[in-house]
Amino acid sequence: MELLGDIVIRLQLENRPGTLARALQCIASFGIGIEAVDLVSSTTSVKVRDISMTVPQPLSSEELEHALNALPGVTVVHVSDRVFLAHLGGKIEISPKRPIVNRADLSLIYTPGVAKVCTAIAQDPFAAFNLTLKNDTVAVVTDGSAILGLGNLGPLAALPVMEGKAALFKRFGNVNAVPICLDTQDPQAIIETVERIAPAFGGINLEDIAAPKCFVIEQTLQERLKIPVFHDDQHGTAIVVLAALRNALRIVGKSLSQVRIVISGAGAAGYAIARLLHESGAEEIIVCDRTGALAAGVPQPSPQKRWMAEELNPRQLRGSLREVLHGADVFIGVSAGGLLNRDDIRTMAAKPIVFALANPIPEVMPQEIADLGAVVATGRSDFPNQINNVLAFPGVFAGALRSRATTINAEMMRAASEALADGVAPEELSPEFIIPSVFDTHVQEQIAQATEEAARRTGVAQRDGSVQ
Amino acid sequence: MELLGDIVIRLQLENRPGTLARALQCIASFGIGIEAVDLVSSTTSVKVRDISMTVPQPLSSEELEHALNALPGVTVVHVSDRVFLAHLGGKIEISPKRPIVNRADLSLIYTPGVAKVCTAIAQDPFAAFNLTLKNDTVAVVTDGSAILGLGNLGPLAALPVMEGKAALFKRFGNVNAVPICLDTQDPQAIIETVERIAPAFGGINLEDIAAPKCFVIEQTLQERLKIPVFHDDQHGTAIVVLAALRNALRIVGKSLSQVRIVISGAGAAGYAIARLLHESGAEEIIVCDRTGALAAGVPQPSPQKRWMAEELNPRQLRGSLREVLHGADVFIGVSAGGLLNRDDIRTMAAKPIVFALANPIPEVMPQEIADLGAVVATGRSDFPNQINNVLAFPGVFAGALRSRATTINAEMMRAASEALADGVAPEELSPEFIIPSVFDTHVQEQIAQATEEAARRTGVAQRDGSVQ
Repeated sequence: MELLGDIVIRLQLENRPGTLARALQCIASFGIGIEAVDLVSSTTSVKVRDISMTVPQPLSSEELEHALNALPGVTVVHVSDRVFLAHLGGKIEISPKRPIVNRADLSLIYTPGVAKVCTAIAQDPFAAFNLTLKNDTVAVVTDGSAILGLGNLGPLAALPVMEGKAALFKRFGNVNAVPICLDTQDPQAIIETVERIAPAFGGINLEDIAAPKCFVIEQTLQERLKIPVFHDDQHGTAIVVLAALRNALRIVGKSLSQVRIVISGAGAAGYAIARLLHESGAEEIIVCDRTGALAAGVPQPSPQKRWMAEELNPRQLRGSLREVLHGADVFIGVSAGGLLNRDDIRTMAAKPIVFALANPIPEVMPQEIADLGAVVATGRSDFPNQINNVLAFPGVFAGALRSRATTINAEMMRAASEALADGVAPEELSPEFIIPSVFDTHVQEQIAQATEEAARRTGVAQRDGSVQ
Repeated sequence: MELLGDIVIRLQLENRPGTLARALQCIASFGIGIEAVDLVSSTTSVKVRDISMTVPQPLSSEELEHALNALPGVTVVHVSDRVFLAHLGGKIEISPKRPIVNRADLSLIYTPGVAKVCTAIAQDPFAAFNLTLKNDTVAVVTDGSAILGLGNLGPLAALPVMEGKAALFKRFGNVNAVPICLDTQDPQAIIETVERIAPAFGGINLEDIAAPKCFVIEQTLQERLKIPVFHDDQHGTAIVVLAALRNALRIVGKSLSQVRIVISGAGAAGYAIARLLHESGAEEIIVCDRTGALAAGVPQPSPQKRWMAEELNPRQLRGSLREVLHGADVFIGVSAGGLLNRDDIRTMAAKPIVFALANPIPEVMPQEIADLGAVVATGRSDFPNQINNVLAFPGVFAGALRSRATTINAEMMRAASEALADGVAPEELSPEFIIPSVFDTHVQEQIAQATEEAARRTGVAQRDGSVQ
């Protein structure tokens, strides 16, 4: 096994002074930093301990184990990867909301009492929103065709991501989410299957479905279902980018309607960002794919690309990403690592805003342009200004569910985005702090309220604010 | 609103001696029994209290409210049905198994760490059982075509039952269960949809799907999927009936291979009971539907009925339920209330065993035959010997999941049934105690272990007992 990153080694240590120290010294000699030492069990003769550490460079597990086992009184029990330990046995669980202690509880939540609730819903289907998990539960649906940056690994390999997403939904939005991994990648079959499983859910979060089929799947489902259908790779990203951009523009003293914005990446995220920025008042947006700037007069493979080529790019700039970046105020990258360098950023307008969001390697590394970019953001947690979808989807769905919204429209997304931007107080705002922390749960509640109010304002809410 | 059963009335009471007593006296004057009085809030001038009560006969809510409001110092805030209160906002929730406190947690369970887990599953799909919720999660799937005794109310009205079932799965088997209500009642569409959503689940529990389509759905899915597919209305019932019958036969000193068994009801439950009893050594089983005893030479509408007519009923008895009951040792009813009376039971053999399982009204009321039946059981919690599926499905699935069984075969069901029967110790066994209590969690663990061992013994387990 090759070791890299966070690992845990379980050691059995003879109970004599110096044994642990010897083991830690040996680990340190490999250039490994120790994070924690926990006691697992102890007898008079031996102690079993878990040593948590971070391995900075790839290292052979055998080599390290051999060195440790060679020490007097030290035996390696096993070596584990902390990522795998965190996923072992699954990451979510499904539990009763209220305790089931006696027969009276049983007869209320199950037979015979439940029959009364079934009958009430048969008479008034809308009652299901109040009397079942449809109240606060969404399905997180994927076909595994575009998992993170890994590509098409299929539905089963997507499950750890969907499950992680479900964990985040609960943690940050108090929304229940069910991972659904579809054993089909055909758009019509995906639409049909989601329609069939929809009754139990209050919303559908589409996830990691490749472009361009993600567009037709989302649109068709939203037309057919009376619950919100939201492709997070599109709209979640767009909401957070818009919020971050608002705050970045405040710092450089420019306005959304006057800046020239270049987007690298014309897939799900690029299209949704372009659309939301456009709907929010941005007037000059040039979207680039691998062939360069999208402009009219060239046949485009999808309605989305045609729209970006014809309705955006008002001066019909043409050329490579590098070429159209000249004089731009804002760069937003949702494409691939290492596309740009210092010299490219130097050609941008004064006080350039650079959102290099490709993961794990940004379009340009922040440290490379530290003295050039007025505001720089990435998708990574190890640099300032992390653009992370988890800042949006929990609050947005929480608000949509509370208002029983039939959809999540652009007005709701803009309201959510504003609430997120306002999560950074004017006195806190700085080039290194344009977006709240993921762990700021107050801002999630603000987003939920803003989304809920926008649903009411735009007439898509099915419950008014006075009802509990 | 018509009141019946468990309700809660919230009253605002002036803070003077005697006000509460007057209110309770008024309620009692309607023949209503008070169960509990809880304080909700209190100021110097008023107290708000919830009065829980059981209304024995249908009563108009307006009438009761009017009488209470007429009392000095008493105001009705609202009247609630306790069943609806227990379902309000849904009965289950989905939560992370481990806390998400900081960025390190996020990077382990979500990006970037999760990518490593996705890749591992893409390389070895079986790893999904260890690294995702597939480990301990089942789908509870219905089309709402046969909800309890209510009939075909459709998928949405079935949701409270599926959700209750999910709560019981966790409470009694520590198994996670996801309610899936399908917006289609076509057998092929149901099969196709379940196949498509199967990747995230370690098992499929079919529920409240009408006969005879339930048979083809279960069989086809079990052929196509490599995880257990289990129709609880069939097999859960059969497992508990077999366990109860074993213990009842011990009491009357008869053996399964020698008794004559009459089953009333040839639907999902009747067929599954007949099959499991037959496979467990019962030699004379006569199954009756509305037309009377199933026997050869009459065209039958399904392969299941044909099998019961031709392969069971060895002496080819014909006639009505009443007629074939003459001389029978065991009656098992999974049909309709009030089909039999005292005189019918009197025609049975000496020391008759009567399982009258129709809900809510048994085929014959226990008190009517108290002096005739040697052992009497029902599906109700208000009589001794309740035959309840919740005694089987949590433990059976827990055992199947632990062993990574590809199916739940007859041997596993028999093992589960024996473990359940053995949950009543020989010295405890009596005509009024043939089956453990639903709240006996020790017996669920015994069932899980027995199911797991049987899976290994019959070669359908994909994990051996030594692996943790």
